[in-house]
Amino acid sequence: MKVIKFGGSSLASAEQLKKVLDIVRSDSERRFVVVSAPGKRTPEDTKVTDALIKYYRSYTNEDDVSADQDWIIKRYKGIIDELGLSHSILDRITASITELATLPIEGNDFLYDTFLAAGEDNNAKLVAAYFRKNGLPARYLHPGKAGIIVSSEPGNAQILPSSYDKLEELRDSDEVLVIPGFFGVTVNKQICTFSRGGSDISGSIVAAGVKADLYENFTDVDGIFAAHPGVVHKPHSIKELTYREMRELAYAGFSVLHDEALIPAYRGRIPLVIKNTNNPSHPGTRIVLEHSKQELPVVGISGDDKFVSINISKYLMNREVGFGRKVLQVLEDLNIRWEHIPTGIDDMSIILRERELTPIKEREILTQLTRNLGVDEVEFERDLSIIMIVGENMKNQVGVMSTATKAMSDKGINIEMISQGSSEVSVMLVIKSSHEKTAVRAIYKAFFGQEDEKK
Amino acid sequence: MKVIKFGGSSLASAEQLKKVLDIVRSDSERRFVVVSAPGKRTPEDTKVTDALIKYYRSYTNEDDVSADQDWIIKRYKGIIDELGLSHSILDRITASITELATLPIEGNDFLYDTFLAAGEDNNAKLVAAYFRKNGLPARYLHPGKAGIIVSSEPGNAQILPSSYDKLEELRDSDEVLVIPGFFGVTVNKQICTFSRGGSDISGSIVAAGVKADLYENFTDVDGIFAAHPGVVHKPHSIKELTYREMRELAYAGFSVLHDEALIPAYRGRIPLVIKNTNNPSHPGTRIVLEHSKQELPVVGISGDDKFVSINISKYLMNREVGFGRKVLQVLEDLNIRWEHIPTGIDDMSIILRERELTPIKEREILTQLTRNLGVDEVEFERDLSIIMIVGENMKNQVGVMSTATKAMSDKGINIEMISQGSSEVSVMLVIKSSHEKTAVRAIYKAFFGQEDEKK
Repeated sequence: MKVIKFGGSSLASAEQLKKVLDIVRSDSERRFVVVSAPGKRTPEDTKVTDALIKYYRSYTNEDDVSADQDWIIKRYKGIIDELGLSHSILDRITASITELATLPIEGNDFLYDTFLAAGEDNNAKLVAAYFRKNGLPARYLHPGKAGIIVSSEPGNAQILPSSYDKLEELRDSDEVLVIPGFFGVTVNKQICTFSRGGSDISGSIVAAGVKADLYENFTDVDGIFAAHPGVVHKPHSIKELTYREMRELAYAGFSVLHDEALIPAYRGRIPLVIKNTNNPSHPGTRIVLEHSKQELPVVGISGDDKFVSINISKYLMNREVGFGRKVLQVLEDLNIRWEHIPTGIDDMSIILRERELTPIKEREILTQLTRNLGVDEVEFERDLSIIMIVGENMKNQVGVMSTATKAMSDKGINIEMISQGSSEVSVMLVIKSSHEKTAVRAIYKAFFGQEDEKK
Repeated sequence: MKVIKFGGSSLASAEQLKKVLDIVRSDSERRFVVVSAPGKRTPEDTKVTDALIKYYRSYTNEDDVSADQDWIIKRYKGIIDELGLSHSILDRITASITELATLPIEGNDFLYDTFLAAGEDNNAKLVAAYFRKNGLPARYLHPGKAGIIVSSEPGNAQILPSSYDKLEELRDSDEVLVIPGFFGVTVNKQICTFSRGGSDISGSIVAAGVKADLYENFTDVDGIFAAHPGVVHKPHSIKELTYREMRELAYAGFSVLHDEALIPAYRGRIPLVIKNTNNPSHPGTRIVLEHSKQELPVVGISGDDKFVSINISKYLMNREVGFGRKVLQVLEDLNIRWEHIPTGIDDMSIILRERELTPIKEREILTQLTRNLGVDEVEFERDLSIIMIVGENMKNQVGVMSTATKAMSDKGINIEMISQGSSEVSVMLVIKSSHEKTAVRAIYKAFFGQEDEKK
C-alpha cells in the first residue's frame, strides 16, 4: 500500500496529468494520491495558489473579484478541456471558486487559509474525475472526511494525534483516494493550512495514518543530488538516504523537502522515495530508516552560509562548574537559538545563525559575558559557512576525516572549526564563506571523483 | 630582575647545592631564590617533607618523637657538614625542628601546615647561610616578612591580593633574598600551606609581586618534552611554550608544573623558564605570553585517558530552544563538571572525566534525560582518551588537521570525535583508550619526524 504525492509542477497541465495517471495506474499499490494545486507550466506562469492570494486580496479589499475568479476557473478549464473531461467537474470547480467570495470577512480567522486551500481542493476533484474517466476507480476525498483534523492555528496547523486512527480506516477503501494536500480541518470544521511545504506534510500524515509501505513523493527532479547542482557540475542523485542523513543535509542548505514534512513519516517508520514525474523509471532517492546495505561512507555534501561564531576566552574556564550553562542561559534569555559549541580548554565558541542576532542582542551578550561572567575576551566572527559531509556509514570507515581535511588543505582552505558528533552521521566543517563553493567542490571530488574542475 | 625557584631534587645534597650556588652567582639578576625542602638523593631516599609528616603523626599520637626529630636534623646536618657551614645554622634548624613538638595540638588548625612548612623554611635558612659563606650577599626571608599573606585555608591557602604591594617593596633589597616556598602566613600569623606544587606557586607569587623580568623554575629535566617520554622514544624538549599551550598540554596529562602555580605569573605577565639544575647550559623551556617568532605549528602532543562520553539523541533536538542548557543544568545540579560538548544536528555528546560519575549520578542522569527531557537515546561510552595536539601557530598553517587525521587513518585508528576550538591553540581528538599510545606516537612522528618505531 503506497501513498503518492504529486507536486504542483507535476499537475500543471494535461500533459503532466497524463504522466500522473500512468504512474498511478502502473502500480496497484498506489492507493492514496495527495495532490498540490496546479503549479507553473513555464517559469513565467502563475501558480494557482498565487492567483488565489490575489483573489483573496481583491475580495477583502472589496474590489471587483470577477477577473480573479475568471483567471482561476479558466486555468482549470484549460486542463479539463484538454483532458476531455465532462463539464460537470468544471461546474463544481466554478461553484467552489465563486463561493469563496460569499464567505464572511469580519472575524473570520480562517478566510485566508480557505482561499488558499481551494487550489489543492479543486485540483483533487479534477484529478479524481480524470482518473475515473480513464477507468481507474478513484474518488475525491476531502481532508475533513479523511480525518485530517488539525489545531486551530491558521497557516501553521498541527496535526492532532487522534487523526491517525481515523485515517487508518481508509485502508479498507477499494477505490484510489485522491486527497488535496496542504490543509486539514479544525474540530470546528474550519479549513486550516499547514506551514510551507504543506502538501508534503499531508502526504506524510496520510502515509503514517494508513500505515503505508511507502510514501512516494513525486517532484520534477531525479531525487536528491549529492551536492547542490549550482555548485558542483552534474552531481549524481543519491540512491538511498536515511532520515538522519536527510536531516543533516537539510540543515546546511538542502531543501528538496521541508524537514517538518518528514516528521509524521519518520515517526510512523514509513520509508519515503523522492521521484521525478517526468522520468518515473529513474529510481529516485529513497529515504529510509536504516540503510539496506553497505553504501559509500559519504552520501552527500551540503554547505550553508550566514553563520556567526561568538568566541569566548576565559583563563581557567574549565575549572568553573556551571560556566558553560550560564553562557547558554544568557542566550536563552535573549531567545537566541545556537547551533554548536566547540570548546577548547580556556575557550568556547557559540556558533549560531546570523538571523538570531540583532545589534541590541549583541550588545546585551557582550555586557553579560564581560560584566557578569567575567570573560577575558569575546569576539563576534562573521561570514562563516558550515559544510556538512553526511553519511551514516562513516562510522565504519577510518579515514573520512582525513580525506576531507586533506581536500581542504590541498586547496589552501583553513578549517576554522571541525566537529564530528558521536553519532558519526556527519562531519561538520566551519570555514570562511568565501571558500564555501571551492570547499564543496573539493570535497565532492575527494569522495565521488568526477567533478568537472573547469566549471 | 629574576626570581629563581629550585625544586627538592635540586636541593637534596651538598653536591646539588653547589650547582645551585653556581647558577645563582652566574647571573646578578637572580635576586630572589625560592626553595623547596630537600628532596630525594636516590629513588629510595625519603623526602624531608615526608619525614615531617611522620614526625607530625608521632607527635599528635603522643608517641616518642625523638627518632623523627633526629632523622630530620641529621638530614640537614649531613648537608651542613659537607658544605662546611658553621654549626650556628645547625643550631637554628635544630631548635626550629624540636620546637614543633611544643606547639598546641588541640584546636590548632594550622599544626599540620606548620610541621610541613618547616622543611622549606629551614632549607631556606641553610641555603642563605651557604650563599653568604661563599661571598654572595644573601638573606633568609620568612614569607610572613616578605608579605606572602594568605587566606586561612589549611593545605589550600590562597594569596591575598594585598600581598603583591608588600612584595614589590622587596625590589629595593641589595641582597639575594632566599624565601622558603610552599607556604604563607595568615592575617593572624599562622603558617598556612598552598596546595600541591606549592613551591612553584610561591615562586610564581614572588615573581609577580616583585615584577620580575623572568621566573626561572629549576627542576631535574631539560624543560618540557614535546610528548611523554614514556610513550615516545626520546622526545625533544620544547624551546618555547605560551601559557595557553602549557595549559592545553597540562589538560591532557602533562604535569611538569601544577597549572595553578602559573596563575600569578600569568596574571603578572611574567615569562617563565623551566630549566635543569643538572644541565644549566641547556636553554630549557620558556613559557611566555606570546611566541617570539614563527615556530612550528605544533609544539607538543599529550594524551590522557579515563574520559566518558554521554551520547544523547533526540529527533529535532536543534529546534528546541534551551535543550542544551537544560542538559547542562542536569549535570550542574549533580555537581558534575563536563569538558566538551560536540554536537550534531539531532545529537549532542557530553565528554567528561570518569571521576565525575558515580553509579547513582549515572542513574539520575538517565532518569532526567529520558523522563524530563524526552530524549530518544542516551548511551554512556567509556574507555575514551583525549589527545591534544597543541600549538598557537596552528592557526596560520593550513593542514594541521589533515596531517593529524591522516596519521590516525594510516594506523587504522578511528577518530570518535574531533574538535578544534576557535582559538585554534589545539586540536582535540577523542579515540578509544586502547589506541592512545599508538596515536600519540603516530602524531609525534607526523609532526616531528624522528620517533623510533621500534620502541
